[in-house]
Amino acid sequence: MAAALRGFRNLVERCHRHADFAYVSTRCMASKTQVGFVGLGNMGNPMAKNLLKHGYPVIATDVFPESCKEVQELGAQIVDNPAEVADKADRIITMLPSSPNVIDVYTGPNGILKKVKKGTLLIDSSTIDPAVSKETAAAAEKLGAVFMDAPVSGGVGAASSGKLTFMVGGAEEEFNAAKELLSCMGANVVYCGQVGTGQAAKICNNMLLAIGMIGTSETMNLGIRLGLDPKLLAKILNMSSGRCWSSDTYNPVPGVMEGVPSGNNYQGGFGTQLMTKDLGLAQNTATTTRTPVPLGSLAHQIYRMMCARGYANKDFSSVFQFLREEENQ
Amino acid sequence: MAAALRGFRNLVERCHRHADFAYVSTRCMASKTQVGFVGLGNMGNPMAKNLLKHGYPVIATDVFPESCKEVQELGAQIVDNPAEVADKADRIITMLPSSPNVIDVYTGPNGILKKVKKGTLLIDSSTIDPAVSKETAAAAEKLGAVFMDAPVSGGVGAASSGKLTFMVGGAEEEFNAAKELLSCMGANVVYCGQVGTGQAAKICNNMLLAIGMIGTSETMNLGIRLGLDPKLLAKILNMSSGRCWSSDTYNPVPGVMEGVPSGNNYQGGFGTQLMTKDLGLAQNTATTTRTPVPLGSLAHQIYRMMCARGYANKDFSSVFQFLREEENQ
Amino acid sequence: MAAALRGFRNLVERCHRHADFAYVSTRCMASKTQVGFVGLGNMGNPMAKNLLKHGYPVIATDVFPESCKEVQELGAQIVDNPAEVADKADRIITMLPSSPNVIDVYTGPNGILKKVKKGTLLIDSSTIDPAVSKETAAAAEKLGAVFMDAPVSGGVGAASSGKLTFMVGGAEEEFNAAKELLSCMGANVVYCGQVGTGQAAKICNNMLLAIGMIGTSETMNLGIRLGLDPKLLAKILNMSSGRCWSSDTYNPVPGVMEGVPSGNNYQGGFGTQLMTKDLGLAQNTATTTRTPVPLGSLAHQIYRMMCARGYANKDFSSVFQFLREEENQ
Amino acid sequence: MAAALRGFRNLVERCHRHADFAYVSTRCMASKTQVGFVGLGNMGNPMAKNLLKHGYPVIATDVFPESCKEVQELGAQIVDNPAEVADKADRIITMLPSSPNVIDVYTGPNGILKKVKKGTLLIDSSTIDPAVSKETAAAAEKLGAVFMDAPVSGGVGAASSGKLTFMVGGAEEEFNAAKELLSCMGANVVYCGQVGTGQAAKICNNMLLAIGMIGTSETMNLGIRLGLDPKLLAKILNMSSGRCWSSDTYNPVPGVMEGVPSGNNYQGGFGTQLMTKDLGLAQNTATTTRTPVPLGSLAHQIYRMMCARGYANKDFSSVFQFLREEENQ
Repeated sequence: MAAALRGFRNLVERCHRHADFAYVSTRCMASKTQVGFVGLGNMGNPMAKNLLKHGYPVIATDVFPESCKEVQELGAQIVDNPAEVADKADRIITMLPSSPNVIDVYTGPNGILKKVKKGTLLIDSSTIDPAVSKETAAAAEKLGAVFMDAPVSGGVGAASSGKLTFMVGGAEEEFNAAKELLSCMGANVVYCGQVGTGQAAKICNNMLLAIGMIGTSETMNLGIRLGLDPKLLAKILNMSSGRCWSSDTYNPVPGVMEGVPSGNNYQGGFGTQLMTKDLGLAQNTATTTRTPVPLGSLAHQIYRMMCARGYANKDFSSVFQFLREEENQ
Repeated sequence: MAAALRGFRNLVERCHRHADFAYVSTRCMASKTQVGFVGLGNMGNPMAKNLLKHGYPVIATDVFPESCKEVQELGAQIVDNPAEVADKADRIITMLPSSPNVIDVYTGPNGILKKVKKGTLLIDSSTIDPAVSKETAAAAEKLGAVFMDAPVSGGVGAASSGKLTFMVGGAEEEFNAAKELLSCMGANVVYCGQVGTGQAAKICNNMLLAIGMIGTSETMNLGIRLGLDPKLLAKILNMSSGRCWSSDTYNPVPGVMEGVPSGNNYQGGFGTQLMTKDLGLAQNTATTTRTPVPLGSLAHQIYRMMCARGYANKDFSSVFQFLREEENQ
Repeated sequence: MAAALRGFRNLVERCHRHADFAYVSTRCMASKTQVGFVGLGNMGNPMAKNLLKHGYPVIATDVFPESCKEVQELGAQIVDNPAEVADKADRIITMLPSSPNVIDVYTGPNGILKKVKKGTLLIDSSTIDPAVSKETAAAAEKLGAVFMDAPVSGGVGAASSGKLTFMVGGAEEEFNAAKELLSCMGANVVYCGQVGTGQAAKICNNMLLAIGMIGTSETMNLGIRLGLDPKLLAKILNMSSGRCWSSDTYNPVPGVMEGVPSGNNYQGGFGTQLMTKDLGLAQNTATTTRTPVPLGSLAHQIYRMMCARGYANKDFSSVFQFLREEENQ
Repeated sequence: MAAALRGFRNLVERCHRHADFAYVSTRCMASKTQVGFVGLGNMGNPMAKNLLKHGYPVIATDVFPESCKEVQELGAQIVDNPAEVADKADRIITMLPSSPNVIDVYTGPNGILKKVKKGTLLIDSSTIDPAVSKETAAAAEKLGAVFMDAPVSGGVGAASSGKLTFMVGGAEEEFNAAKELLSCMGANVVYCGQVGTGQAAKICNNMLLAIGMIGTSETMNLGIRLGLDPKLLAKILNMSSGRCWSSDTYNPVPGVMEGVPSGNNYQGGFGTQLMTKDLGLAQNTATTTRTPVPLGSLAHQIYRMMCARGYANKDFSSVFQFLREEENQ
């Protein structure tokens, strides 16, 4: 009920903003109308399930038909392409691997914007270049639709348990409407500012994360070689100014902490290849904005070297292993 | 009383270890006998004062006679050189700028080892190369004295208020005797392992700190240019995996936090030049142990460039300012 | 005459390749028919003049009308936009600042491709992302036109004296037709391979150049501080394995060589900002191809920092100055 | 004869300089008196042989007696330790692995300085920290001996064929006396300046060499991935501003050149481990002189990572292989 009221307030606000706002979006009227979902991969699949679990009818599509089976069995309607989703839903979530996929899903021949209705709320949870988010938002706005970027922090586990963090960029008055849906899939939904700032926040966090992880790995390795016990060193760092998430929550040295990938041969977690992709986005935005990011840039190169040397699918904390001397020499 | 008992136990233990232990150290007998202090600079001065404040008679020296005045007025006995300190005290603390000073104060012509007595406890709180600590310890051991490295974390403020953290390396059975004195000057006294590990812990922490600070500065700068509000970005990082001490406790962006150097034109705090020195030590140890430290190495170079460009005496968080575009271009 | 024959052979070859080749390009018939030129900036202006000097009628345009005056006075016909150039010329050269300009000039509303004729030869001498070259070539090919990338090495001086080096990518059988025109403006015209490889060669060269220049500057600075005479050090490097173009032809240390920007307060030459742009292209291609380029990446960051600190318009050899300690500290 | 005259002139010059010069060195009297040689390893062995080949009686020693056999069979006199060499020769050459060995051979309990005679010429061809060269020179000077540093460029092959390059630091008036001997073992003997500058020149050259080699490897790798033929790319770089010794004389890409280690699975040549050692010296001197060397520092880290991953004994051009993507992924 509260959500419906919030939706109504949103509608009124939007009417005031857009003088030419003739079409009355049905999404504002009832919060549990059909929600569109494009991209049912490792992340999209559990996200869509959580929407179903919260009682939202879902209409979905994916380039790989077999990816649709699971949610179909749970009651989702499957259609052929994003345009058809847009034809039938006025709230759509997209979760795609990279910028080109987002461009194709939105502006391609069978893309969402081919049939998007005025007033439709488009939420893209892919991690992509913020410049692409801005362009897509501009294209959507021309058609009377609203685009928000809402990339996530947290992996497949958090997606399954509905514990993702969403960083949301877009018109502030649309935030509550987006939050209604995103709250079904995440524990935190943070408003970051205008379109693209969700991506910016995600990219910034992951760049600093990569720097902290490599830095922690270098430091732990150096300390061990200087005769320090790794657990003791971690303890000292964590009570001092060297403390960071990688040292106190996700320590990369096997045996220092339990329940983290370093204790499990770097299986699971956040893959080196995915981190490399995010660092590539950070570098692109740094180049566009002419921002010096020397450590971020070197972190990117190190993860790229790791991908080239067999670490692509290991957790990104395996940089500790990469930097240690091999035994058989 | 407890301290005296601990001292006695130490004596007994030492007697068991050193079969040739003929000289009976008076330091074990009464905890408030004279304590030697060499190096009364910005840090050493308040440290010596705290010893006096706790009732320890202090016998001190410094290459600059004027540095001795303050503690002299507070009751310390001033002598001409480290050898004379060693002649009169069997517990000595040294606090010096760099490795060559430590070598000179211990092994120089008027150095401590010229007159050190068997059983003397030597505690070096300088931040130096752990290899020098080990060599000095070996030289002291030949003379029957005990050397421990105990570098500090915390600046002049912490030294004045007795809130330093000491990271201590050396024989474990001597730790309590060292802790008795160090507790007068610090809030935390952490045992790290054999001689040199105190330095190792300090160096490791500061290397990771430098990496985290530059990383935070790059990230905040990038985020701001991508349209994020700096306070909001800091908040997001601090609830996410990008969190580190530099982002949540000592943020380098003016206006994000209060009471930190970034809010005071980077005055006070921990100077870029001092950080550069510590990173130089880290690099030396990394070279000696053949440890790859790519980010630590680049951090060193960045702080070195800053020193060359007028940032030597600003707080090390001024790297944020260094990386931002100048306005008049 | 020989050129006309070559042109004819080209025509025949093309006819064999394109079964649907109905339109007979006039460019093949007479080599001194009108040549189109888009982009009359610092580089394009002298290049167009050299075409006029060699007797080619030129039809040109630029977004800034005043840029057209000089060539107009020399006899060039000026039109309103690239589409009009394409309407009247079947050989067109473009020389533009960056990828977005190229996209606009070719595929924009008044772009070349709006009116390009079948068989037209399009030569882009801008330095841009090779991916954009490939896309533009594909778009041109659909319309029956031929696109080649031909970025230049050499600055305004070489452009004026007709001594540029062109690195050309595109169909090999078109190379001679391109070379006929490019030879009027350059001393070397090198065929590099398929479309985009001209850009690739340019980008690769400049990345290695930047690395060599910064490396030479670091090395010369270090040697000087170690007591070596800079001229002597340069001589030693140049007879040894440290030798590179930056040490033996364009030495960055004032006083070591004559006739280079380091001897003239880093005026003239190749601006830091332009080098930074090329390094940005190198990074983009490295990210796309997942190629580790650690030194290239760090070189990019260093030049970016220099841009942020007042070096944007100085010659890129001013990195030597950037790395030296300032005097008044 | 000419050499003897040069020797005599040297003597006269020295007499003028040192008013207190009472002892008349016999080395000045006849150029083919005994020459001492300490360190008969991979490099020292062929060097000593070349001295014998040129008719110089050699008196030698090495910590490993078996290393002495070869030169002994060729007529060299073998003694127990460096002090004995100094007792019998007034011209001594040392060729040792690293700084600690040099310190020990000169100032250790059986070191050269224990028995060195006034006027003795000491030439150290080891590659070590220039600070150690300076200290050793100062210690030698106190005893009336002359120390020069003369590190070599060129490997075992050049040592065998007498084609080494010597970079010599020390008093200029002693240079000719040193050159007389060094010319037997090398093709170039370059005077660099005061003591330590020979090391400085060597270190500087190798730092720039390492940067050029990694830069060339990154660039060639990037170009290949962008579709360029490696031979063509090398040709383009070598006629352009990207040219360097690593691209035109020692190309790291298999198949581009013949007769270099890249064509032989990176066997032979200059080992990664040795380059890493030299880069460590460069970093130490940069730290001591507070010189920013960002690329040199990163090059050091990359070679260190390579040592940790099995490349220690491959030629340093194998960085190309290190940076390329592994096939089985």
